[in-house]
Amino acid sequence: MENKLIKHQFILEILDKYKVIWSLNHLGALGSWDLSVYMPEEGAGARGEALGKVATLSQKLFLDKEFTDLIKKADKEKDLNDYERAIIRMLKRSLKYYEKLPPEFIEEFLRVVSESQIAWKKAKEQDNFSIFEPYLERIVELTKKKAEYLGYVEHPYDALLDEYEEGLTVKEVEKYFVSIKQPLIDLIKHIKNSKKFRREHELEKQEYNIEKMKKLNDKMLNFIHYNMNHIRIDVSSHPFSISLGKGDVRITTRYEGHDFARSYSSTIHEYGHALYEIQSHDDLHYTPIAGGSSLVIHESQSRFWENFIGKSKGFISLMYNDILEVEDKFKNFSIDEIYDYVNLVKPSLIRTESDEVTYHLHIMIRFEIEKALIEGKIKVSDLPKIWNDKYEEYLGIRPTNNREGILQDVHWSQGSIGYFPTYSLGTALSAMWKHHIEKDLGNIEDILKTKEGIKKIQDWLKENIHQYGSTYMFRDLVKKTTHEEFSSKYLLDYLEKKYKEIY
Amino acid sequence: MENKLIKHQFILEILDKYKVIWSLNHLGALGSWDLSVYMPEEGAGARGEALGKVATLSQKLFLDKEFTDLIKKADKEKDLNDYERAIIRMLKRSLKYYEKLPPEFIEEFLRVVSESQIAWKKAKEQDNFSIFEPYLERIVELTKKKAEYLGYVEHPYDALLDEYEEGLTVKEVEKYFVSIKQPLIDLIKHIKNSKKFRREHELEKQEYNIEKMKKLNDKMLNFIHYNMNHIRIDVSSHPFSISLGKGDVRITTRYEGHDFARSYSSTIHEYGHALYEIQSHDDLHYTPIAGGSSLVIHESQSRFWENFIGKSKGFISLMYNDILEVEDKFKNFSIDEIYDYVNLVKPSLIRTESDEVTYHLHIMIRFEIEKALIEGKIKVSDLPKIWNDKYEEYLGIRPTNNREGILQDVHWSQGSIGYFPTYSLGTALSAMWKHHIEKDLGNIEDILKTKEGIKKIQDWLKENIHQYGSTYMFRDLVKKTTHEEFSSKYLLDYLEKKYKEIY
Repeated sequence: MENKLIKHQFILEILDKYKVIWSLNHLGALGSWDLSVYMPEEGAGARGEALGKVATLSQKLFLDKEFTDLIKKADKEKDLNDYERAIIRMLKRSLKYYEKLPPEFIEEFLRVVSESQIAWKKAKEQDNFSIFEPYLERIVELTKKKAEYLGYVEHPYDALLDEYEEGLTVKEVEKYFVSIKQPLIDLIKHIKNSKKFRREHELEKQEYNIEKMKKLNDKMLNFIHYNMNHIRIDVSSHPFSISLGKGDVRITTRYEGHDFARSYSSTIHEYGHALYEIQSHDDLHYTPIAGGSSLVIHESQSRFWENFIGKSKGFISLMYNDILEVEDKFKNFSIDEIYDYVNLVKPSLIRTESDEVTYHLHIMIRFEIEKALIEGKIKVSDLPKIWNDKYEEYLGIRPTNNREGILQDVHWSQGSIGYFPTYSLGTALSAMWKHHIEKDLGNIEDILKTKEGIKKIQDWLKENIHQYGSTYMFRDLVKKTTHEEFSSKYLLDYLEKKYKEIY
Repeated sequence: MENKLIKHQFILEILDKYKVIWSLNHLGALGSWDLSVYMPEEGAGARGEALGKVATLSQKLFLDKEFTDLIKKADKEKDLNDYERAIIRMLKRSLKYYEKLPPEFIEEFLRVVSESQIAWKKAKEQDNFSIFEPYLERIVELTKKKAEYLGYVEHPYDALLDEYEEGLTVKEVEKYFVSIKQPLIDLIKHIKNSKKFRREHELEKQEYNIEKMKKLNDKMLNFIHYNMNHIRIDVSSHPFSISLGKGDVRITTRYEGHDFARSYSSTIHEYGHALYEIQSHDDLHYTPIAGGSSLVIHESQSRFWENFIGKSKGFISLMYNDILEVEDKFKNFSIDEIYDYVNLVKPSLIRTESDEVTYHLHIMIRFEIEKALIEGKIKVSDLPKIWNDKYEEYLGIRPTNNREGILQDVHWSQGSIGYFPTYSLGTALSAMWKHHIEKDLGNIEDILKTKEGIKKIQDWLKENIHQYGSTYMFRDLVKKTTHEEFSSKYLLDYLEKKYKEIY
């Protein structure tokens, strides 16, 4: 079958060879998915062996001279189209990591990270930072080394940011955080002074039947999505989405048994990620630019669905009868009350349960700590105090234990330093999309008055974002679609307007 | 960690290299499992691509000169122990297939088989043999070619039998079928003349609630198995079992919504396969002899659990209260009546639903047809008539359509010719194990009077069969464990005794 997007024979030749690596990635992704959802407990050792061996094999195939020569030759060609250029860009990016990081370093890093996760889990369970401390020290040390291997122009943390968002720099992230910090602090002050402000909503404590909640999530997914033959939903303790390729995208969600908005929001958040992968152009499948690789764009999609659809009054109205099916006591709450519940703003300790407004302060704290660690300005042993001080300063509340403090996130134990900023940037980008969708299609609350409105939004996202997969880097895509530079303006406008209405 | 079974450094070196191939097999097996149980429908294309590419990659790694040289060198060593020798035997076996079958042939075979399965499905749905006929002709032609490539001493069908059961020959299979044919025909005659004989049991038509039936299968598995952390059960249209390696073995079962013995028997049958893999010696994991590769031994395990445990009065008594939970109307049936239902003997058209006695005649018919096809003595176009004539001759009933006749089995569309005889031989072998277990532990009906009895049986099977994985070929294992040659005697004795008691 002819590929409509990729024309040059030498690119097709590269893609043909790449298909073997794609196949290993596909089965590796399935292996990770299964590990989180269905694998029998005692299968962990065998799975770890297989995934490790296959990752090494994949690297070996990538570094095969015949393959790298083809990439380097294609890179010199002048008349590539955007898709073709992006394919070479992404392959070179992988090549850079494989070539710059010595195999012994990768091996050591993976070993430390694997041990660290166990130590972190134990430390969190026992609320004892000292169990995790030596591992985190080792991770910080290795991460600094990684930055040196990878190289950077201005700041070692730039090399780390680039791993998660191609080309992102400390300078940009700081400029962005400066732009949102004071307005958010002011908005939180306004909310806390409102008569409507409350530290807890009744529905947070309300328990639900997990089987019935599953039905709600199924119904919601069936309602918003237009084809259930290429998506599935399962359960895992940390929700995620994963694309296995054409016609096969999977999400997971969680069920705590109370505070149903967590499960509901996780589901629609992951759906946002999934839709990006699903609506990628058919001819990009089996290539390195199928689906999204920019974490900022990806998060802009998940947050779009989570916040602008899932937390809108229009969507809550559409789902209201189904929500009532979950639990008899839900019947005591009107649409407006459920709207208030899912949009409750209050400074809190746990990032993953935080609201749209305070969320960014959680991210800022992590960014500041990571940067200072890489600069060597703070010590790992001082982290519990530094963390708690920052929470007190930014959010006005102080963790009383490390479980709700420095030990709450899994990221550092996984060796992911430089990841957090993409969460906040992605959320800001989602507000830009919202603005432009509303310019093109009208107010989202109005669009959501009918089910057809959802399809219109999906089509807009496909047309303007999804179809391109990873063809464009995030700033370029923003410019192409919105004819503007990326900015935090729309996020602040949206939060200001929405929450001054509620509070 | 030291390997207690494998001592020679050069074997450990081979196994170290083999681990990459094992890893591909592991993820490939997961890919097949997922395809049957959870994969979204539209993911089939991508999965097919990935599995195909990975199979080719696996072959390439296997044929790497460095690896094959190590195998060939080890093969010349004299003082290998049984495990080490078996590892080399199994690797040479794979090598033989990779070396003898030209890649273009494998590719063509896979392509034809993939198209044939679609054609077969359509032909079966429409009850139209002519849709499948040209594909089956092509498969027979390619299979004859395959036999020539692989080579044989006496009969081309020997080369095909060997694919499924190492070293099995037409001569042996014929000798075996001759030994059981007349006794079975006589026994069926006796049963049909019995006053108790009936064409249908009330419970066959009795519908059940699928969710409740799932609970029964879960309870049964929890009851018989001693560790649920290394096994799981899911649903698929054709039940199967698959081992992904240490600590991860999976079975599937089916739910038609009526005739509950089908679901119940499938579950315990697949459990028998799974237990063989689970109880393989720990130090054989990641090697080519972990778990069973002889289909005869494997089937002897599944049939052992299906027939001697699942259909025993002792086990039905143990499960009786749980069976009654499935459906109110089951309460009308006593333990004895349920025993009669699961042990109902009657000539029927569908192999997968046939009883212990008539089962072997179904297999015989398939063997005779396959052999004659390979010999060129019959034509594919004549098959519907030949099939129906044989059913009339052997079972006294004639299919009225091809769906219940020549089109009923998936095997030929998958290119599996030479597979069927292992079903019957494995069943005969299961009766040999039964005899020897009873010699060592006492009557199975007595053993099943307590739950601990089940563990005793599992331990016996581990000690005498499972722990060895594929170390011994089937005849050798039989001799080692029973000090006898394989024979059909115990199968005939068992059937004679059991069914003359019932009828």
